[in-house]
Amino acid sequence: MEDKIKIGIVGYGNLGRGVESAIGQNSDMELVSVFTRREPDSVSLLNSAIPVRPLATIEEYKEEIDVLILCGGSKNDLPEQGPVLSASFNTVDSFDTHAKIPEYFESVNASAKPNGKTAIISVGWDPGLFSINRLFGEAILPEGATYTFWGKGLSQGHSDAVRRIEGVKGAVQYTIPVEEAVDRVRSGVQPELSTREKHTRECFVVLQEGADAERVERDIVTMPDYFADYDTTVHFISEEGLAKDHAAMPHGGFVIRSGKTGEASNQVMEFSLTLDSNPEFTSSVLVAYARAAYKMNRAGDSGAKTVYDVAPGLLSPKSPAELRKELL
Amino acid sequence: MEDKIKIGIVGYGNLGRGVESAIGQNSDMELVSVFTRREPDSVSLLNSAIPVRPLATIEEYKEEIDVLILCGGSKNDLPEQGPVLSASFNTVDSFDTHAKIPEYFESVNASAKPNGKTAIISVGWDPGLFSINRLFGEAILPEGATYTFWGKGLSQGHSDAVRRIEGVKGAVQYTIPVEEAVDRVRSGVQPELSTREKHTRECFVVLQEGADAERVERDIVTMPDYFADYDTTVHFISEEGLAKDHAAMPHGGFVIRSGKTGEASNQVMEFSLTLDSNPEFTSSVLVAYARAAYKMNRAGDSGAKTVYDVAPGLLSPKSPAELRKELL
Repeated sequence: MEDKIKIGIVGYGNLGRGVESAIGQNSDMELVSVFTRREPDSVSLLNSAIPVRPLATIEEYKEEIDVLILCGGSKNDLPEQGPVLSASFNTVDSFDTHAKIPEYFESVNASAKPNGKTAIISVGWDPGLFSINRLFGEAILPEGATYTFWGKGLSQGHSDAVRRIEGVKGAVQYTIPVEEAVDRVRSGVQPELSTREKHTRECFVVLQEGADAERVERDIVTMPDYFADYDTTVHFISEEGLAKDHAAMPHGGFVIRSGKTGEASNQVMEFSLTLDSNPEFTSSVLVAYARAAYKMNRAGDSGAKTVYDVAPGLLSPKSPAELRKELL
Repeated sequence: MEDKIKIGIVGYGNLGRGVESAIGQNSDMELVSVFTRREPDSVSLLNSAIPVRPLATIEEYKEEIDVLILCGGSKNDLPEQGPVLSASFNTVDSFDTHAKIPEYFESVNASAKPNGKTAIISVGWDPGLFSINRLFGEAILPEGATYTFWGKGLSQGHSDAVRRIEGVKGAVQYTIPVEEAVDRVRSGVQPELSTREKHTRECFVVLQEGADAERVERDIVTMPDYFADYDTTVHFISEEGLAKDHAAMPHGGFVIRSGKTGEASNQVMEFSLTLDSNPEFTSSVLVAYARAAYKMNRAGDSGAKTVYDVAPGLLSPKSPAELRKELL
């Protein structure tokens, strides 16, 4: 037990629960504590033997934790917690507001670096594994085009947008890649694709009593940014149907690089994910990168990092010699 | 021009030609010389302005070259050249005899490390990109199974084995993944698959005059290690047909990791390649890793390395800040 990597979780929602579960699949790690802003007694973990503590007391546990996995949201939690906690802990988080990554990186680096802590930000699958594959694609095939498709999957942001419409009691939204577009990209022709040609959107909506279905549908399909640029289908369903058929959180997608080499050789690289549970998969990625954060910190490599800075071998519990022998 | 990464090529076959071509796609690099064991005048490059020099004189050009890309074969060339050249140059090679990688790594490390040189071995797609994806798969989804499928593609080793049979004038062999097996793996069921269930083999053979077709076919399909464990189809064709329809070197394949998280969520990760030209793609990977070798050496990170030791960002000509802003 002594040599295990000691993990703390900050925030216990879908992602925190996924991290707890993923740590149980990694014998070189142990979960030592969960920290929450809620009343600790109100949080029940999968493994009830692990203490739940108030986030306000976290500094007292600095010596007991090797890496903190931050499981809060990118909008409100991480911009505040990342810079504060990375001054005292090695951290890993899934900050995923693409446009604000440079700013977030700088603020985390400013607190991690002078304190000798290692903070890997924006870990998960997009940003994360998809980012790595976008980079591999353009570095290896400089003359080409990169395509990212998402889905079929439940989009939290778009579901929330539908739920905010007057007359909507509940809703989920699925993002669906257009199969014909994916096939054209895979064929190596490097098509120019508009937003509408790449994805469709499908909404399952429960109406409040007396709500005007036609008006709700119009409000959805014309919503700027979220739906106006897509072909959107709206289905009205019962509350029971929503609970029964749409509770899971599947997702996935593809990163495809289509390039040319030599005279006219088409070369296509593709990375794809088909996930029954988006939060559980993201959690599993976070846990692997927590191992990397631990190793990088022990090697003296501190400051803010992204997946681009992490050598693949650091994700594995195996030694470099084992990896060369067994996996290369 | 001054700041470009100066590349030398050792050995000018399909791979060397592919490297020359790939360097032309990367504006931060320039090819300064090709070294060969052949008579230099007998080697004609795509760009005739670049000098071709005898390999025996290579030590004279130490100061002019930032990274040497070794384009020889794994059987005879690299075991000899890798350890010698990595004492004087940063190197990248595509050593692909999986079973001998640990030994080759040690011998290259023993000469690169004390001389402060960086030598990235076993670069390409398998070993190489496929290795990275095998590692990502098992590090992120520890409870699961990894499947590697190759093809549809031309296998050099198997083509050579057929050509060595008495009565065979010419031949190519294609390795073909069994679609049903790939579909089962993608579905998340984690099947146990025998060698025969994963791939079939297809041979196109030109007979020497008077050769016994039945005997040749029997010699092929019963050949131990190469064909006996597979369902193999043999087609006899004309010499013209071989030249016309089978001169290209397509290849590719898939690495699929199928794992479980949480209670029972299936999670499937897949990396796939569809390549018109196997050697041109391998060359493109070598060139991207040459950039990484250059950066690692400048950062003082010397010795033998594999793709597991190379942070993804090092492959790109973009700065870490550009990568975070544009690609993450």
